[in-house]
Amino acid sequence: MMATLGARLVSVAAGRVEIAAPVTAAVSQQHGAGHAALAFALGDSAAGYSALTLLPADAEVMTAEIRIHLLRPARGVGLVARGAVLKPGRRLIVVTAEVFALDGTGAETQVALLTGTMVPVAPGA
Amino acid sequence: MMATLGARLVSVAAGRVEIAAPVTAAVSQQHGAGHAALAFALGDSAAGYSALTLLPADAEVMTAEIRIHLLRPARGVGLVARGAVLKPGRRLIVVTAEVFALDGTGAETQVALLTGTMVPVAPGA
Amino acid sequence: MMATLGARLVSVAAGRVEIAAPVTAAVSQQHGAGHAALAFALGDSAAGYSALTLLPADAEVMTAEIRIHLLRPARGVGLVARGAVLKPGRRLIVVTAEVFALDGTGAETQVALLTGTMVPVAPGA
Amino acid sequence: MMATLGARLVSVAAGRVEIAAPVTAAVSQQHGAGHAALAFALGDSAAGYSALTLLPADAEVMTAEIRIHLLRPARGVGLVARGAVLKPGRRLIVVTAEVFALDGTGAETQVALLTGTMVPVAPGA
Repeated sequence: MMATLGARLVSVAAGRVEIAAPVTAAVSQQHGAGHAALAFALGDSAAGYSALTLLPADAEVMTAEIRIHLLRPARGVGLVARGAVLKPGRRLIVVTAEVFALDGTGAETQVALLTGTMVPVAPGA
Repeated sequence: MMATLGARLVSVAAGRVEIAAPVTAAVSQQHGAGHAALAFALGDSAAGYSALTLLPADAEVMTAEIRIHLLRPARGVGLVARGAVLKPGRRLIVVTAEVFALDGTGAETQVALLTGTMVPVAPGA
Repeated sequence: MMATLGARLVSVAAGRVEIAAPVTAAVSQQHGAGHAALAFALGDSAAGYSALTLLPADAEVMTAEIRIHLLRPARGVGLVARGAVLKPGRRLIVVTAEVFALDGTGAETQVALLTGTMVPVAPGA
Repeated sequence: MMATLGARLVSVAAGRVEIAAPVTAAVSQQHGAGHAALAFALGDSAAGYSALTLLPADAEVMTAEIRIHLLRPARGVGLVARGAVLKPGRRLIVVTAEVFALDGTGAETQVALLTGTMVPVAPGA
């Protein structure tokens, strides 16, 4: 799905991950702004990868639940999602992600906020 | 986005809409199950269209916020999302959607529950 | 807190619990309807006890996260919350609760919907 | 309800409100930590008052929906909730609140995060 959306990893630090993707016709709604599902996909992935940075190298995470507030239409040339771990844990990891629209000149406008719960899963589980 | 996902409208009734899509490699995560963003996209759309069925023909809706519980991996040949209006309103419409995985034999397993808030917007607003 | 609110257990079945409480001045907001926190407290407790019914006798649960949609003002003589388990699990239990206002004649009006995630905790943990 | 909980307004600024309350036996759960409903009540109120600070003097707000992540047990002598407006709007106001436990020496530990949607209502509506 990340490849389908043209998403790319922008930066990775302990508990913090940035993912970006272009806003193209393929991921827009009928009015030309990025579809809610694009902001969701980037935010959910940035949040999940943020959780992964705090786990052993072979661990994986699953989204148990996540919620998105859509603050403004996602108008622009691309979106960037910044995930962060709010509360690490052995059984649950509470995560957030902010999603911004990029206008091509370097200006950013926040278009979404996500908060969710990630669950570490043992590899092969 | 709905076209990119191969989504199609299955049924429409007052306050209730079904949308389905295949689970293909393009919308899967690394383990072959449908990506969370696919369940989200279908559930959000089914919920939004459910709200639309209660509004004048030229009205539109926007998702203000929506939350998804991912109950099980979305394994199967396709997904179907069933949206419903829980509470209609002039300013806010509370919606739900249940998303099921289809195994190709007619059996269904619920994989996600969404609840959210839709906002009617006047055409051209 | 449940004693402070005058809450009482109405019924208990596997995965389903009902809790009720009166709407008094002590738990109302400035306009005389039950405060959002009353609906929350009853719904959260009904949901948590529903999860408990599926666990060993000495287990406990904690709310990891829960969300409430307030559908209508909680006007009436009392509230009843009906909790249910949507998805049991060893590490996470997905729960819902519907909260209804009682008008004293037996009529009920749904005033809130909650969905949340409960975490089983070992006794003494 | 706010009086029942012993809640008091600590500070008010444009889009930002702090509310505090003691953790007493009357608002605790069976293990002596503050009940989830106390953190909810303070966070919901701080978020709602934050929205009110951006509206005309006679306006009111209602919580449409709000969600709480409980990060840690609310152990301490009191709780303080800090509400903030994330996105103002004519029809919807997106709000957040962070809730901290106070240990009596000035140290604070975050115990909850809330995000929600407030709806302005005309007085007398």
